[in-house]
Amino acid sequence: MSEAWRDGPDQPLPPGGSQGLGAVLRAAASLAAMGGLESVSVGRLAAAVGVSKAGLDTLFGSKENLQLAVVDEAARVFADEVVRPALAAPPGLPQLTAVCEAFFAYLERRTFPGGCFLYGVALEMGGRPGPVGERIAGFQDRFGALIRGFAAAAVARNELAAGEDPDRLAFELNGIMLAADTNFVLNDDPGVLDLARQIVRQRLRP
Amino acid sequence: MSEAWRDGPDQPLPPGGSQGLGAVLRAAASLAAMGGLESVSVGRLAAAVGVSKAGLDTLFGSKENLQLAVVDEAARVFADEVVRPALAAPPGLPQLTAVCEAFFAYLERRTFPGGCFLYGVALEMGGRPGPVGERIAGFQDRFGALIRGFAAAAVARNELAAGEDPDRLAFELNGIMLAADTNFVLNDDPGVLDLARQIVRQRLRP
Repeated sequence: MSEAWRDGPDQPLPPGGSQGLGAVLRAAASLAAMGGLESVSVGRLAAAVGVSKAGLDTLFGSKENLQLAVVDEAARVFADEVVRPALAAPPGLPQLTAVCEAFFAYLERRTFPGGCFLYGVALEMGGRPGPVGERIAGFQDRFGALIRGFAAAAVARNELAAGEDPDRLAFELNGIMLAADTNFVLNDDPGVLDLARQIVRQRLRP
Repeated sequence: MSEAWRDGPDQPLPPGGSQGLGAVLRAAASLAAMGGLESVSVGRLAAAVGVSKAGLDTLFGSKENLQLAVVDEAARVFADEVVRPALAAPPGLPQLTAVCEAFFAYLERRTFPGGCFLYGVALEMGGRPGPVGERIAGFQDRFGALIRGFAAAAVARNELAAGEDPDRLAFELNGIMLAADTNFVLNDDPGVLDLARQIVRQRLRP
């Protein structure tokens, strides 16, 4: 599971000049978090970060390549802020609890304006044919599998109620994270995250 | 609660000519469901429905007005397909169960390509200042309040487990609906909706 994340989009990015590529891509992800991935163009990104459009054109070549790079950068940030802290916890219930808490903390830090970038673009483009939709769907598949794996380990270790189904539990936890993201974006109220934490604690009682 | 829905966006729309306004707006909502509300412009919509750009310009006047009309039309469809069947059920637990089932059936019918239009645009634009973001946030507030009202009625009638909290339960059910929407869009698999139905049944056991 952790290998899938290491081999996945969280590859080190090539260093940029005075304006590193990572910073450019994070600016693009912030644009996309506010207006959708479709709204990110080389021209708008150049204006937002104050670099030349020609330079970005050379770097990315096409809007699709730019979108793919933005998704990969957002997945790298997500791996760093949500997946790594979860994998650092002991297997089973502690990892399951840690992945939820890391997700809520990542929202709370407002890493991206407009909530979790990768949930936002999942509904925007995740169902569309083509490389960008497939990249987003692939990310969501891996994150779903990660949660299911943690849940299955917790069940195997008898850390949850008898008869708990890992698929069902993973679906519910994914739903709580989605509701936390959506409600936090809509209401800009950290109380939403406290409610989500309470629900997770209650749901994961042995 | 039902008054709020009747007084809200589900006003009758003025009839169009051979191409009714409702049909134009549903086409716009379908465009938006696939590429985000930001991607909907008078020009693209005119091309999609085969009417003149000048005619649509006269009708809407601005991109913002077009976006507001699309959100209102999507809310009208949602009121028809999800809220009305729920309100038709007896108060309490039956309404709570019915609103979830009506939502899953609305996804299953693929009323909009790309899943629930109003969940998609909530993450895209719900947190942004301005009339469109506010209209979307207002819709989500009313839908959240509707579910909380059903949950509170079910608690008051002792139809749920003792100590059940309506706010928490409404948040969880909203999460299950969001996870159903996202996973159905990503995987195009009706099995996702069966899993969501199972989870709701299990969660709402007295």
